[in-house]
Amino acid sequence: MEEKIMETKMKIEEMAARAREASIMLAACSTGLKNNALKAIADGLTCRKDEIIRANVLDLERSSREGIPAPLLKRLKFDENKIADVIDGIYSLIKLDDPVGRTLMATRLDEGLELYKVSCPIGVVGVIFESRPDALVQISTLCLKSGNSVMLKGGSEARETNRILAGVISAATEGAGIGKGWIQLLETRADVNEMLKLDKYIDLIIPRGSNEFVRYIMDNSRIPVLGHADGICHCYVHEDADLDMAVNIVVDSKTQYVAVCNATETLLVHEKVAGPFLPELKHELDKKGVTLAGCDKTRSIIAVGEATEEDWKTEYLDYKLSIRVVNSMDEAINHINTYGSGHTDAIITRSRDAASRFMMLVDSGNVFWNCSTRFSDGFRYGLGAEVGISTNKIHARGPVGLEGMVIYKYKLVGSGHVVEDYASRRKSFKHIKLDKETPV
Amino acid sequence: MEEKIMETKMKIEEMAARAREASIMLAACSTGLKNNALKAIADGLTCRKDEIIRANVLDLERSSREGIPAPLLKRLKFDENKIADVIDGIYSLIKLDDPVGRTLMATRLDEGLELYKVSCPIGVVGVIFESRPDALVQISTLCLKSGNSVMLKGGSEARETNRILAGVISAATEGAGIGKGWIQLLETRADVNEMLKLDKYIDLIIPRGSNEFVRYIMDNSRIPVLGHADGICHCYVHEDADLDMAVNIVVDSKTQYVAVCNATETLLVHEKVAGPFLPELKHELDKKGVTLAGCDKTRSIIAVGEATEEDWKTEYLDYKLSIRVVNSMDEAINHINTYGSGHTDAIITRSRDAASRFMMLVDSGNVFWNCSTRFSDGFRYGLGAEVGISTNKIHARGPVGLEGMVIYKYKLVGSGHVVEDYASRRKSFKHIKLDKETPV
Repeated sequence: MEEKIMETKMKIEEMAARAREASIMLAACSTGLKNNALKAIADGLTCRKDEIIRANVLDLERSSREGIPAPLLKRLKFDENKIADVIDGIYSLIKLDDPVGRTLMATRLDEGLELYKVSCPIGVVGVIFESRPDALVQISTLCLKSGNSVMLKGGSEARETNRILAGVISAATEGAGIGKGWIQLLETRADVNEMLKLDKYIDLIIPRGSNEFVRYIMDNSRIPVLGHADGICHCYVHEDADLDMAVNIVVDSKTQYVAVCNATETLLVHEKVAGPFLPELKHELDKKGVTLAGCDKTRSIIAVGEATEEDWKTEYLDYKLSIRVVNSMDEAINHINTYGSGHTDAIITRSRDAASRFMMLVDSGNVFWNCSTRFSDGFRYGLGAEVGISTNKIHARGPVGLEGMVIYKYKLVGSGHVVEDYASRRKSFKHIKLDKETPV
Repeated sequence: MEEKIMETKMKIEEMAARAREASIMLAACSTGLKNNALKAIADGLTCRKDEIIRANVLDLERSSREGIPAPLLKRLKFDENKIADVIDGIYSLIKLDDPVGRTLMATRLDEGLELYKVSCPIGVVGVIFESRPDALVQISTLCLKSGNSVMLKGGSEARETNRILAGVISAATEGAGIGKGWIQLLETRADVNEMLKLDKYIDLIIPRGSNEFVRYIMDNSRIPVLGHADGICHCYVHEDADLDMAVNIVVDSKTQYVAVCNATETLLVHEKVAGPFLPELKHELDKKGVTLAGCDKTRSIIAVGEATEEDWKTEYLDYKLSIRVVNSMDEAINHINTYGSGHTDAIITRSRDAASRFMMLVDSGNVFWNCSTRFSDGFRYGLGAEVGISTNKIHARGPVGLEGMVIYKYKLVGSGHVVEDYASRRKSFKHIKLDKETPV
């Protein structure tokens, strides 16, 4: 057992070291080379699709024997249509601008001394994702386009599919001239635990999964974590809301797809419109089979169960909605900032001022006016691709696409400049903004 | 004892909760209000300077009695000149653009559905800084301008000075119309330990101090940490370098101020120029009293001590330099990426191609061509103010000024839009880039 643990430790450390080594050269790859490599991946998937589907059938059969629930089996399935979808995704990614090598700022510090702030890849990213094999292709191609090495851990149900997909991607990119080692596949929970210790090699962890899982990762690694634990989203119906619009938005926010992080879990309603609004809403939600739980005021208007303090903190991910009547917008804002998860919150109002105040004071990554919380998504936002949704307050917030996968470095170009000349006041800084690209 | 710990816990949690509450309103403050508040701080410091100096004298006397070393006492001193300097700093800060409220991106997702990415404050920042009382003023005003609440812990030697400075700042900003609670002063190590647990309220920790201290913070908090542990900076002298320029740059990088993170600790020299270069460099460094330690090749050229593996990993912060002769630029790059700390590294070369390759492949926040590593600093970069230097690979890297103190939120403005219309393909996304400011 001891020996096995040591073996895993060595193996994962070796993989991380290789990923890090590869990341240095990957950071220097041209856009053309990266796009060619992406095209090679698409070609590889096309050529080897029978092999991929056969591996997936093995996963499906084994998972089915192990009694995995039907919705999970559906997500695990990777057939000809799914392959066509991920290939479409790759061609969309090729068309996106390269986020690397952009000059973000240029300043002349003094004659002959120029400073450039230039975007560059983060380095090595560890991503732990759910059972969908398409996620492996999406995440690894996103990392490639942004110049990052990636250590991937998918669902163990999908292990055969993931192995072959990682193999296809690695071979295709090597053939296109990208060095080996930038994509590494982990297979067990023990592998993940080892990875979490490797802050020497890994710069960012992106965990996708349950609340408890994300918290576990955060508590067990010194590596920065990007992602979200809860998705407790709110709709607030203001006193001047168009009530028909409000019913539509709340129904969509709650029921369009309940199992996702941007579905609404709690409805807040201004007391002035609760009387006419709640019965109408209940009528529509009853049709969808949504269970309601409300505060006392809610229950004096519609016959629903009681909502407790615990309800305000709960992400149901189900056909259930908690309702609270508030006596002001500020009470709604305060409720959201207290119980929400900083994910996505919407106001329905006719007033621009009310919307503006709500969107300023609600401390969430996505604040919406007169539309469904379900729009909170990288594809819908037009980011082209999404590595996840972040409720972090640093680096990247909301849906994270290519832009969230880069950082920058400062490049300073001089001609023999030394600090002593400025410390002794023989020279002084000019700090003139320049409008030019980095020359190096 | 138990009771005392509980008391500290309650007190710090209460302070953090108040900071968080204040941060919500601070995020909505106009630039004008924030600048007026900054002016009020400057006025407060002017009016109450005698009081401040008296408090500082108490700190100096106590510290002197306690036998604190002279350089530390010098940093602790906060006299009329230092007060004038921080007031100058505040007026410079007033002139800087507000980093909050900028529209970073605007996209029409569909007719009547527009997405805006707008910069906003991070929220609550915890800063632990060294003994200089001027740091308290600089950090808190930087936080105010960027709309962040701040929990501050300064050196305990400066406790009387810090108390009165925090009091002056709090009173001045309250008088200017900024709500209470945005600035909170911690006083003990126990306070800091409690703060590290409050990821519920605190969004970012910026520790300034020793390597061990920064690592301790990283290992003991779930809150993201921005900063740097080591500053192991390098100069690499390429085979085609102007050797006189190289001597000047290395001397400045090593000796201009040895006790700081951007001083050079290791020199790498291409073997083709080591022969003529090293004796000349030694001649100049001897004058400054710099001790040298070199690899075997170095020691075959100049008479110096032996450098071990440990030297390559050491931040001397002293008049000491380790030297290694390399047989290629790639060996130099590899050495830096292996032993460096990702802080600041310079190449001295006549070749743009060599410089470009070095700056692309060295994975550091600051990569320099033909200038001293000592330029790596927020003031010298023209950022106006600096909260610290980051070797993180996410959020902010290199010297961190106002821009590093903000994040963004997505604001989505619709007119009743629901996702079901797009899922059912009744409507489709347009994703048209807009060139306009957010209307809310």
